[in-house]
Amino acid sequence: MKKHSKVIKKHPAGWDGITPKQYKTQGTNFKDVSRFSLLGEGENEHELNMQTRVFRVEAGGYSSLEYHRHPHSVMIVEGKGSVVLGDEIHELHTLDVVYISPETIHQFHADKGAALSFLCVVDRYRDRPAIPDQTMLDAVMGNSQARKKIIL
Amino acid sequence: MKKHSKVIKKHPAGWDGITPKQYKTQGTNFKDVSRFSLLGEGENEHELNMQTRVFRVEAGGYSSLEYHRHPHSVMIVEGKGSVVLGDEIHELHTLDVVYISPETIHQFHADKGAALSFLCVVDRYRDRPAIPDQTMLDAVMGNSQARKKIIL
Repeated sequence: MKKHSKVIKKHPAGWDGITPKQYKTQGTNFKDVSRFSLLGEGENEHELNMQTRVFRVEAGGYSSLEYHRHPHSVMIVEGKGSVVLGDEIHELHTLDVVYISPETIHQFHADKGAALSFLCVVDRYRDRPAIPDQTMLDAVMGNSQARKKIIL
Repeated sequence: MKKHSKVIKKHPAGWDGITPKQYKTQGTNFKDVSRFSLLGEGENEHELNMQTRVFRVEAGGYSSLEYHRHPHSVMIVEGKGSVVLGDEIHELHTLDVVYISPETIHQFHADKGAALSFLCVVDRYRDRPAIPDQTMLDAVMGNSQARKKIIL
């Protein structure tokens, strides 16, 4: 009657039945990020065309600087930090929304004193992230704010 | 450089530049619900295959009891309440996740003392919701908890 519908309860450290995973299994251009894959991973919730994940970035941590063709629909769900969007830096607080359009270089940072958790919904089938090449980096690093914030 | 990427800042009553809209323009089987269409409405963020909305249900309010083929990926972002999923009732608190699979009858309720806001991500192109017919209702109302909670 409820088909495959379900509720996944939040608890202080995560969600019932969800084991936090490594953010990425390759690369070193990120720090202290864990990934909670909530809906749509593998064969789960196969009716969904999207995947629903939460990334938790510990205080002082950051995600990898990257870009890709698929867009991101993001909402900050806990904590505060900032995001690099191309050559712009935006402060982030709980319930702010971020749209990351195709090919935009981006990187999430938690503040030094607070973890940052963000919900990120993406197409289930999508291209893999790529690391910006030197030409792309030069374009972004022309902004001194971005140059100070970005960690390669 | 940042393409169409952007940040939409939260403020106490909503989000910058987002005008809350009527939940639905037809029907009477809901109460005190407003809709914040954040990403992917109309021609906005045209690269997204999904729409990102937040529904705010005022204390004592409820969404319409309905079902449809498209699934919902939901996260509670503020407040507390409950959801009818088929003939089950689940309490909801902030950051709980709800998966609503195709054809599951569902209805969100805010608690009497607190508003409930939930993020709901759906396919951009999807079928319209339908109201359960008497046979479907009879199946769900067989559960006394559901019978007490559901408002038609």
